[in-house]
Amino acid sequence: MSYFCLEMKILVVNGPNLNLLGKREPEIYGSQSFTQYFESLQIDFSNQELVYFQSNHEGELIDFIQKEGFSAFGLVINAGGFTHTSVALADAISAVSIAAVEVHISNIFARESFRHHSYLSPVCKGIISGLGLYGYKAAIHYLIQHSGK
Amino acid sequence: MSYFCLEMKILVVNGPNLNLLGKREPEIYGSQSFTQYFESLQIDFSNQELVYFQSNHEGELIDFIQKEGFSAFGLVINAGGFTHTSVALADAISAVSIAAVEVHISNIFARESFRHHSYLSPVCKGIISGLGLYGYKAAIHYLIQHSGK
Amino acid sequence: MSYFCLEMKILVVNGPNLNLLGKREPEIYGSQSFTQYFESLQIDFSNQELVYFQSNHEGELIDFIQKEGFSAFGLVINAGGFTHTSVALADAISAVSIAAVEVHISNIFARESFRHHSYLSPVCKGIISGLGLYGYKAAIHYLIQHSGK
Amino acid sequence: MSYFCLEMKILVVNGPNLNLLGKREPEIYGSQSFTQYFESLQIDFSNQELVYFQSNHEGELIDFIQKEGFSAFGLVINAGGFTHTSVALADAISAVSIAAVEVHISNIFARESFRHHSYLSPVCKGIISGLGLYGYKAAIHYLIQHSGK
Amino acid sequence: MSYFCLEMKILVVNGPNLNLLGKREPEIYGSQSFTQYFESLQIDFSNQELVYFQSNHEGELIDFIQKEGFSAFGLVINAGGFTHTSVALADAISAVSIAAVEVHISNIFARESFRHHSYLSPVCKGIISGLGLYGYKAAIHYLIQHSGK
Amino acid sequence: MSYFCLEMKILVVNGPNLNLLGKREPEIYGSQSFTQYFESLQIDFSNQELVYFQSNHEGELIDFIQKEGFSAFGLVINAGGFTHTSVALADAISAVSIAAVEVHISNIFARESFRHHSYLSPVCKGIISGLGLYGYKAAIHYLIQHSGK
Amino acid sequence: MSYFCLEMKILVVNGPNLNLLGKREPEIYGSQSFTQYFESLQIDFSNQELVYFQSNHEGELIDFIQKEGFSAFGLVINAGGFTHTSVALADAISAVSIAAVEVHISNIFARESFRHHSYLSPVCKGIISGLGLYGYKAAIHYLIQHSGK
Amino acid sequence: MSYFCLEMKILVVNGPNLNLLGKREPEIYGSQSFTQYFESLQIDFSNQELVYFQSNHEGELIDFIQKEGFSAFGLVINAGGFTHTSVALADAISAVSIAAVEVHISNIFARESFRHHSYLSPVCKGIISGLGLYGYKAAIHYLIQHSGK
Amino acid sequence: MSYFCLEMKILVVNGPNLNLLGKREPEIYGSQSFTQYFESLQIDFSNQELVYFQSNHEGELIDFIQKEGFSAFGLVINAGGFTHTSVALADAISAVSIAAVEVHISNIFARESFRHHSYLSPVCKGIISGLGLYGYKAAIHYLIQHSGK
Amino acid sequence: MSYFCLEMKILVVNGPNLNLLGKREPEIYGSQSFTQYFESLQIDFSNQELVYFQSNHEGELIDFIQKEGFSAFGLVINAGGFTHTSVALADAISAVSIAAVEVHISNIFARESFRHHSYLSPVCKGIISGLGLYGYKAAIHYLIQHSGK
Amino acid sequence: MSYFCLEMKILVVNGPNLNLLGKREPEIYGSQSFTQYFESLQIDFSNQELVYFQSNHEGELIDFIQKEGFSAFGLVINAGGFTHTSVALADAISAVSIAAVEVHISNIFARESFRHHSYLSPVCKGIISGLGLYGYKAAIHYLIQHSGK
Amino acid sequence: MSYFCLEMKILVVNGPNLNLLGKREPEIYGSQSFTQYFESLQIDFSNQELVYFQSNHEGELIDFIQKEGFSAFGLVINAGGFTHTSVALADAISAVSIAAVEVHISNIFARESFRHHSYLSPVCKGIISGLGLYGYKAAIHYLIQHSGK
Repeated sequence: MSYFCLEMKILVVNGPNLNLLGKREPEIYGSQSFTQYFESLQIDFSNQELVYFQSNHEGELIDFIQKEGFSAFGLVINAGGFTHTSVALADAISAVSIAAVEVHISNIFARESFRHHSYLSPVCKGIISGLGLYGYKAAIHYLIQHSGK
Repeated sequence: MSYFCLEMKILVVNGPNLNLLGKREPEIYGSQSFTQYFESLQIDFSNQELVYFQSNHEGELIDFIQKEGFSAFGLVINAGGFTHTSVALADAISAVSIAAVEVHISNIFARESFRHHSYLSPVCKGIISGLGLYGYKAAIHYLIQHSGK
Repeated sequence: MSYFCLEMKILVVNGPNLNLLGKREPEIYGSQSFTQYFESLQIDFSNQELVYFQSNHEGELIDFIQKEGFSAFGLVINAGGFTHTSVALADAISAVSIAAVEVHISNIFARESFRHHSYLSPVCKGIISGLGLYGYKAAIHYLIQHSGK
Repeated sequence: MSYFCLEMKILVVNGPNLNLLGKREPEIYGSQSFTQYFESLQIDFSNQELVYFQSNHEGELIDFIQKEGFSAFGLVINAGGFTHTSVALADAISAVSIAAVEVHISNIFARESFRHHSYLSPVCKGIISGLGLYGYKAAIHYLIQHSGK
Repeated sequence: MSYFCLEMKILVVNGPNLNLLGKREPEIYGSQSFTQYFESLQIDFSNQELVYFQSNHEGELIDFIQKEGFSAFGLVINAGGFTHTSVALADAISAVSIAAVEVHISNIFARESFRHHSYLSPVCKGIISGLGLYGYKAAIHYLIQHSGK
Repeated sequence: MSYFCLEMKILVVNGPNLNLLGKREPEIYGSQSFTQYFESLQIDFSNQELVYFQSNHEGELIDFIQKEGFSAFGLVINAGGFTHTSVALADAISAVSIAAVEVHISNIFARESFRHHSYLSPVCKGIISGLGLYGYKAAIHYLIQHSGK
Repeated sequence: MSYFCLEMKILVVNGPNLNLLGKREPEIYGSQSFTQYFESLQIDFSNQELVYFQSNHEGELIDFIQKEGFSAFGLVINAGGFTHTSVALADAISAVSIAAVEVHISNIFARESFRHHSYLSPVCKGIISGLGLYGYKAAIHYLIQHSGK
Repeated sequence: MSYFCLEMKILVVNGPNLNLLGKREPEIYGSQSFTQYFESLQIDFSNQELVYFQSNHEGELIDFIQKEGFSAFGLVINAGGFTHTSVALADAISAVSIAAVEVHISNIFARESFRHHSYLSPVCKGIISGLGLYGYKAAIHYLIQHSGK
Repeated sequence: MSYFCLEMKILVVNGPNLNLLGKREPEIYGSQSFTQYFESLQIDFSNQELVYFQSNHEGELIDFIQKEGFSAFGLVINAGGFTHTSVALADAISAVSIAAVEVHISNIFARESFRHHSYLSPVCKGIISGLGLYGYKAAIHYLIQHSGK
Repeated sequence: MSYFCLEMKILVVNGPNLNLLGKREPEIYGSQSFTQYFESLQIDFSNQELVYFQSNHEGELIDFIQKEGFSAFGLVINAGGFTHTSVALADAISAVSIAAVEVHISNIFARESFRHHSYLSPVCKGIISGLGLYGYKAAIHYLIQHSGK
Repeated sequence: MSYFCLEMKILVVNGPNLNLLGKREPEIYGSQSFTQYFESLQIDFSNQELVYFQSNHEGELIDFIQKEGFSAFGLVINAGGFTHTSVALADAISAVSIAAVEVHISNIFARESFRHHSYLSPVCKGIISGLGLYGYKAAIHYLIQHSGK
Repeated sequence: MSYFCLEMKILVVNGPNLNLLGKREPEIYGSQSFTQYFESLQIDFSNQELVYFQSNHEGELIDFIQKEGFSAFGLVINAGGFTHTSVALADAISAVSIAAVEVHISNIFARESFRHHSYLSPVCKGIISGLGLYGYKAAIHYLIQHSGK
């Protein structure tokens, strides 16, 4: 599995409450903190520049995507609860024209019905839901492998 | 009416526009500012530690609940307009596993139909709506009386 | 906490199946019978005249409200299953122009979706849901404190 | 066309992603930045005090409206994606009782169906949608001409 | 205007809260009691046997219709709040195969949307709504005039 | 039954296809033409000025209501198929501020569901449906009897 | 087919208008009265105690279920029109925790759409619809055969 | 209980996944295989010709009903998942004009909401749901007993 | 503000009941007649050819748009009640491929919900609602300024 | 292909905007005018009397159908935008009891969702949509071939 | 009427239960078998290669379309009950990029509402419904006449 | 990246029309055939037993899952059009209690709205949509890595 030599910047963005990963509802989200997991991602993709950002503020997530989105190669985003309520976040992804993959740790389609709809899905390349933290890794893999397209 | 001797920390959280209480639409919300009212609450519940927080920022409300929620005993929350639109706020309450009571000063069921649905209700113990500022007091009473459960 | 000296008549009305309180689904409704609880309410509010009525008959509840509603000061009503199906009961409350508070022992917003809508809410001052039997007490408190309004 | 001599403060508020104007999706929004356009507005309405504010944060928009809204004469607001999701922003406009005009650069009724509903419309005097940047100018004209009402 | 010589029994049935007529919300329902009005109806239609029944109990209304419906010639029914919620009452009318006219004093189509649907309408000959107490009179007129059909 | 001496002008307006009355679907609408029936109405109400107008054109109905509506005392309208589709006709009735009664020969609530909604009902005093041609007569009676109000 | 020797009490409850069986709409419900049929049931199940109750009053049905439900072994219920409108009746069945089978004589799924939904179904073991009076017999069979479970 | 002497052919048809009975989710469907149960049915109804068919293929079920349906006396069908999705299967039953009873082992009205609707119900005599395997037996009983009708 | 020298024909079209402007519901629509207002528009835009047409007939509005639409430069249309019901009018605008602006004098989004949907909006450049008669002026300004596009 | 010798009158009716055929949106509707096409139809069906009528006025279409419908043998109707909004036109077809075929040049089911519903379809024999102008020809063929039925 | 000399292969595909034509519900579908009718079609279009296929199996229909669809010129399809439920069949038509016409013998818009929606319509050129077997013939005519496009 | 030594059987199942991959709509699905891609998967996961099955027949897919599902370790399924319509397929996955991942090559959430709902999602561990053929690979990765759980 050989990647492109060129280092590419990929944004990994987590929305509200995902900073609690490992503390919060472990039966749904597992017991590993995302910071620990992100370090393992950086090792797995050592040829790439992974940039992590988390916020509970919709506005900060939009600011970050606007600031980094134009120069980055791809975006992996788990917008948490904003997934289902934020048109503004979807507009931001659309505005910076970045290749994005939407990730959810749990299977949102097996939870409350209001979690079945995502404003982000139509502006992302694709969606991965329910594969735990592995979803982030698969999303990065996808973005790198399709970088030439 | 004798409370538990042990001082308990109870969070009182107000969402957007509730800082305008007393100024804004007095025919709906009354003419007393919440700060004045909160002082009277502190006198009524002088054996407890009441912590007040207000913000117009969804993210700041989530940050506060995450920061204080794990160590506090209970939460009284009037999320204002976020009541009807914020999955993220509901997720935060759920994440910190705190006993919460949702309060609305006015009767939200007698207003516009979009105010009849609350994302917070299913993650709270209960809801008090339409009893004016007294709703906050009753919510705190409830939380203290059921502290042993 | 000093109340008005004038004794006020307050109606406490329970609808269908609430006579089974203590027997029925104790994991939802607790194990105390309402009669026992009502006696404690009478002690708590010994300066007021509290009148209790329960029926499984929609018509009897309407008859009672019509008979007592014009002379009473306030109404605390838990209409049980009629909450979600009785326009006639709501019309009765509206017809006697009484200050009413709707009470539910359990959090109806965390149960089946058909329990999220109440015909009574728009004709009541407010609603208390999910605070157990304490909801009745808080409702009476509210009515007394706002008697001058 | 002679305006009132008295200088009036009019707020011009843009919501999320409108800071990208000129960069973002020019086939929808045109290629001029809003800052450039705002300068031309200040020249056109040199007798008035125009105050511009943009933020990607719902909370900052609410804070701004609360701070400036009581003393200003009118509000021209393009809330971007918050238009369709923010009850809190609508409540803020309503709370400061300001004459407001909602503006959208593109025709929101010719786009995705979730953009056809606005929480702001019922609390504004009116709405202008699809007339490009000219919409802001027309909104200010309207506010000035109806200042005596 | 000459009626059939044969005296016919016509049932006039009022549902919940219509016993309060004259006391309840006079701006909607007028200030005359129904008993007074019924006496004037008996004078107007002195050749017919008019039988009046009112109850707040759905079951009593059904019992009455079952008991009298087979021998009566026609039914004028204002089911009040049961109009919108009672399948059982509609089934009773249908079961006794009586010519029925549904009457509402106020214009139910200009009130809350849940009052726009009636379970009774499909099993009645027709509906008169909003013409005040005159609606009862017109309904009886209609029944008598079409008795030969 | 003595009417006001003052002759009052009452408009009787029929919408599309009602000119076919007597020819069209007699099992629903009966076999009498409306012109014949109108003559009998003029005899019954010989103290009043009854003006009849029928058109299959929505615009002509609106023109007529605008032309005659300001000077007439009341309006009896059976808008046929326009009942369910014409906001403009409802606006016309509302614009001339005339006391109106909506009439339908058949019971529209026992027919297709799209016939259950009427745009006219909220701007009329009331509605009579299913009582055949008698509905027109009752409507005129009502208007005359309530002319003093 | 040998049943348990132990005599078991089984309640057979009919709701509104089912007392008219044999008289009412025989093309739908057949021409046998339920009393006659019940006698044949008592013969068929002579080892069991069958208790029959019919009422047109929702409240009486609830009273009966509360009074007999705790000591009975099973419940066969045809709630007639209350099937589709009574949350309170469903709550009563649920409250006494009795094994229940819902029966309808006609096929409710081939009639008006409002008859397709039943509040009782989720609190019953099962439902039998459209098998005529035989449905009662099958329901009792089922309850007896599964008494050991 | 004496049946008609004439042997009648009755089809017993099971749809997708019902071949797994006894293996699949025993807490819902029990642990007996259908083949075992069918043998006991053949003993119970030894005077009749019972023909069993199961398939996971919608087309094979339709083929079977077309081939056997014209000559058979009755049909007992549990269409499994096709119940909720197959218009074609319902059309097949309707096309061969066979007396059919729809059976479900579990109570479909107490499961996911998409299982509450059946395309088959309107073309069947009746439905039995939630009575376990006994439902098949009762369905056959019904068909035999009503064979003369 | 210098316009293009070339005189351009701009159609100003009003739909049903807008001929009553000044007479009808002045609290909503103001007291000026549209004819008076149109004269002031002609003065404001003296370099252009403004053509005014009003009708209560949907067909006449379509005829007019077909006749003038191919040769005109722009269309300002307030279709009144037809806004919400006329697909044919929207098709006409679409058929002549004219740059159109939809205008409403009142804020249709603050009125009945059936006024929130417009068939015209998707085939117009934009919409102005709630700015009173000024909306027409702004619409013409917009059309002239964008004539080169 | 031999037709009936008897000449039959068949009405060909086009609704709003179909007079623009050939000019309007040729990528959807083709570039031939309907008048040209109608001449070719008259040649193809020279043994029959074809009568053509087009109007943008709903009322004129209804008038025409009423005038000609009783004596004509069949009706081919493309009601354009009125298809989706006119109950009155459907009532007219129904009133004259004529065999009708609904035609649409484009495939209305592949366009906006509001074009998927037709008020005319239930009162017509059938519908042809998307086959271009050939649809009219096929409709006439059908009517002639089934004239004996 | 001269067709192209080149023989073209046109697929005629019937879905479930259409093999029963002539046996099944003749009042809806007529009494001719489709095989007989197809022979007459082959005579009418003797210059073309018509290929007929019928199956009650969704999968077989898809297999057939995949196998023949790439080489055929056109497809006439009556998918029976699959019309309303099969996304997979619509995908198959779309996948082979064949010119298709959807045919229904009866008028599906005058039957149950679930028959008003077709998954096939958006991927077909057009639809013919309610013209009996003639619909197949018209569909083939259309395909041949438009073969050059 | 070291996998478990133990060879595990993983089913890769494709539904209708996916056999056309590479031929069908390459702009959506790419130009590689699935057979080619599957060979590369077998090389990538040479330590595992991958079993591939494709069918256009819902029944065959169910048969396969029933036959292989009990002994296999995991299931990767792209059910194509059956995703949105097959309850039976979802029941089969649920019945064999296999760990499953739902895969879609294209982003189903950016296509027609009927493709946004999947019956399979609630019975799968997770879903991958829009990542092209890579989705299959990621799904297998996930299943292997979580085999110990």
